[in-house]
Amino acid sequence: MYGLIGKMKATAGQRDALIDVLLQDVGAMPGCLNYIVARDPKDADAIWISEVWDNADNHRASLSLPQVRAAIERAKPMIASFQAHFETEPVGGHGLTAAR
Amino acid sequence: MYGLIGKMKATAGQRDALIDVLLQDVGAMPGCLNYIVARDPKDADAIWISEVWDNADNHRASLSLPQVRAAIERAKPMIASFQAHFETEPVGGHGLTAAR
Repeated sequence: MYGLIGKMKATAGQRDALIDVLLQDVGAMPGCLNYIVARDPKDADAIWISEVWDNADNHRASLSLPQVRAAIERAKPMIASFQAHFETEPVGGHGLTAAR
Repeated sequence: MYGLIGKMKATAGQRDALIDVLLQDVGAMPGCLNYIVARDPKDADAIWISEVWDNADNHRASLSLPQVRAAIERAKPMIASFQAHFETEPVGGHGLTAAR
């Protein structure tokens, strides 16, 4: 499995709007086993995203899906910066379910 | 929802054994919507754990469950240090499923 844990900052006041975009079409990405968007309770602009994919190739391919490309375009103006980006190798757990 | 993203280091050579303990009885914790254990590909001793709970109370209560207390005792000698600990407020996504 291939995982990502990342933190981004929204432009001021745009966090919830950005989260809405990040949550559209979730679960319709082939090979996506887990994708969770969270607010940072200590930073009013910050968002955490954690993802698990069956492999890195399917994650990379997802970035070319029409709905993902469209979401990235909508999200871009609301992203101020990327704060953290960690690759992981998920081993197991609870909540790893194949995408629809 | 209540989330945690954490990173710990295992004592030398004990990462896989520690992961085995961390993955026992997963999914049997009331209120646990997501719990994923991952290796850090850049650090041979490091482990990432990401969790989503329906609320912080259920997370706290889980630490008193007999199987969790037993796992913590088994894990302790294999934990060298905690490297990161972030609380989050998960909003939504894919892979949020109620525990068995």
